[in-house]
Amino acid sequence: MSLALIGQRAKAAARELARLSTAQKNEALQAIATALRDAQSRILAANAADVAAGRAAGLTDALIDRLRLDEQRLAAIAHDVEHVASLPDPVGGEFAHRTLPNGLQIRKRRVPLGVVGVIYESRPNVTVDVASLCLKAGSTVILRGGKETTRSNGALVEVVQSALATCGITTDAVQSITDPDRALVLELLKLDRYVDMIIPRGGAGLHRFCLDNATVPVITGGIGVCHIFVDDTADLAASVDVIHNAKVQRPSVCNALDTLLVHRTVAPALLPNLARDLVAAGVELRADEEAYRWIEQAGLPVHKATQDDWGQEFMALILSVKVVDDLDQALDHIAHYGTGHSDSILTATKAHADRFVQDVDSAAVYVNASTRFTDGAQLGLGAEVAVSTQKLHARGPMGLEELTTYKWIGGQLEEGEVARYFVRD
Amino acid sequence: MSLALIGQRAKAAARELARLSTAQKNEALQAIATALRDAQSRILAANAADVAAGRAAGLTDALIDRLRLDEQRLAAIAHDVEHVASLPDPVGGEFAHRTLPNGLQIRKRRVPLGVVGVIYESRPNVTVDVASLCLKAGSTVILRGGKETTRSNGALVEVVQSALATCGITTDAVQSITDPDRALVLELLKLDRYVDMIIPRGGAGLHRFCLDNATVPVITGGIGVCHIFVDDTADLAASVDVIHNAKVQRPSVCNALDTLLVHRTVAPALLPNLARDLVAAGVELRADEEAYRWIEQAGLPVHKATQDDWGQEFMALILSVKVVDDLDQALDHIAHYGTGHSDSILTATKAHADRFVQDVDSAAVYVNASTRFTDGAQLGLGAEVAVSTQKLHARGPMGLEELTTYKWIGGQLEEGEVARYFVRD
Repeated sequence: MSLALIGQRAKAAARELARLSTAQKNEALQAIATALRDAQSRILAANAADVAAGRAAGLTDALIDRLRLDEQRLAAIAHDVEHVASLPDPVGGEFAHRTLPNGLQIRKRRVPLGVVGVIYESRPNVTVDVASLCLKAGSTVILRGGKETTRSNGALVEVVQSALATCGITTDAVQSITDPDRALVLELLKLDRYVDMIIPRGGAGLHRFCLDNATVPVITGGIGVCHIFVDDTADLAASVDVIHNAKVQRPSVCNALDTLLVHRTVAPALLPNLARDLVAAGVELRADEEAYRWIEQAGLPVHKATQDDWGQEFMALILSVKVVDDLDQALDHIAHYGTGHSDSILTATKAHADRFVQDVDSAAVYVNASTRFTDGAQLGLGAEVAVSTQKLHARGPMGLEELTTYKWIGGQLEEGEVARYFVRD
Repeated sequence: MSLALIGQRAKAAARELARLSTAQKNEALQAIATALRDAQSRILAANAADVAAGRAAGLTDALIDRLRLDEQRLAAIAHDVEHVASLPDPVGGEFAHRTLPNGLQIRKRRVPLGVVGVIYESRPNVTVDVASLCLKAGSTVILRGGKETTRSNGALVEVVQSALATCGITTDAVQSITDPDRALVLELLKLDRYVDMIIPRGGAGLHRFCLDNATVPVITGGIGVCHIFVDDTADLAASVDVIHNAKVQRPSVCNALDTLLVHRTVAPALLPNLARDLVAAGVELRADEEAYRWIEQAGLPVHKATQDDWGQEFMALILSVKVVDDLDQALDHIAHYGTGHSDSILTATKAHADRFVQDVDSAAVYVNASTRFTDGAQLGLGAEVAVSTQKLHARGPMGLEELTTYKWIGGQLEEGEVARYFVRD
């Protein structure tokens, strides 16, 4: 099928999806979860073929692990679909009511976005995850997964589509581009006639490619160079726990800590204890000259930071550490090297917390908290489709509501109304 | 100055602007209004030179009128700046408060967007209009006006900047690209390192150029192919008034009516009276076969519509008219030919109003009202920087609040707080 035709069908289906009731959408989600369980052997066989092909093509173990499904992972995927069914429907709510001087009642109503395109790499769970979130939000989705997962995605989309069909919902609600030709990604990015939003899920290269080529609005994000600044009044023992959490708990995610900034007056007291804790957890420290001195004097392993260690997202157990003169220098460092994702100050001084929160221009700014909270589930959105580090539409974790837009409605919706509102000036 | 340097300065200034209090911003706006009045002769002289050059270059009278300033228009511009000062400050409000199970308090705070780029054509009032709205919203702006207004814009920006300077605000808050080289527009569109949003103000060609080339998010809009559907239960006499208003009151704007869809059962009763009214107001009617028959039988002038008359924004006293079988056919016509701007149904049937409002995927949908309401001032936003017909970020009229974004804040901002929030799972 040509991409234009896929787009056209997605747009036509979007009108149909926008009309579905919450109950109809939840029933379809439940049907998808059941169908995934029923089709387990077929899905795992397709996935095994992807894994075998990936090994033959020399994929790294990490990549193989990302694309691999097993009974447990598939069960988790089905469970997540049921979880989406349990979330509140973001569509239909009205807000911003106002009555104009001439009596015309206006308000905004939350409505589906329409058609969402998602471009992602090797995790097949994204296929079902994104399809179920878009369905719940009343939008159709065009999926473009990585070529390493073609068979898995093919099987998953087939299962999803047949579950939709049993519920009387058009299978065009969830479409997938299966042709591996990369030119199709380019075409999808320019399909602004039919597609309302593109979400890339992958590394910096994918995001850049989308930005450079898309005429459809793109939600960029996922790149988090995250900072914690330890102020001179921070409780140092407590700080070690928060920093440990931000760096160690899950180092491969975008909200993990990358650079620690330490106020000069607390560096001697904080750094030896902190380094002992982090080194024991397997963290490699890359320190500026002053931090290096305190850590080395404590007899702990430490590397000298290079210029590249500032503003770098490590995605690994590596932490760059810099001693700063004061809050101002910390703010300047973050303004220069941050990516607008998540940054935190540890302090007991309200005035400093206020300034940090005011000045740091990131999607999420924390006081005395780990950067790891920037996550849809943690922040109570229930689920997340992406983490945005751009400023339009949505910032930070994007849940179901962020997959919607609104329309203005003007007029009474009552029986027997007469046409009577016009602009007078 | 290179464009990269302009961008860098705009971004640095944005940090400063974000810190300004409401009082400081309003004082600066007042100073700008005063300075515009004080500099009247200088501004009008610069504008007169633009007008003379425009005439020599053979600009149409309509274009000359758009770029021309006089005492009255300049007074109106200064007055609009004072009006912006009187509007509520959109920055700083907090919402979506929540306390996580571990006690971490989170909420969203409304914050400035950062750096806004505006690309516009020949109206010099846009220069001051946009500068004052961005200033009030706490964002810096990079202006790129049309080459026909270089001198006027130069004088206006100079006046604005010196007013900012007297208030101790960086003049980088309002910068202008004066070099007429069109390559600079292209460069601005790709300046995503510094610019957060591009607003094009102009025709369809400018919007398409921005979409095709920008890596910065673009707010598209301004193209309105607007429809009114007259249902079989509409009050016909009242309908004539609303249709007249939508078409005649200001035909050159994007929310003016373009296509009228009439339910077959009311066409014979409505069309002769309506045509009489519109023809008397100078409207040219382009009707499909059936509508043509009713209008011609009434002895009124009417043209046969061609395929091009559907989905066309006339920006003039021209109306295309089509008879439809029912609501469904009207909805399909709007889905096919609409531009997602403003559409209205005239009906006394609640069920039809409900379906129309639900199904029509436009920024503004009306019941028994003129399409002309889609305007920041009409809808009570106080002012508008653009009318968006895309779905991300903002839809319809964009006022001050739509020039902002939000950040997530996590943590208590109190004296003596201790670092203590981390992710446990």
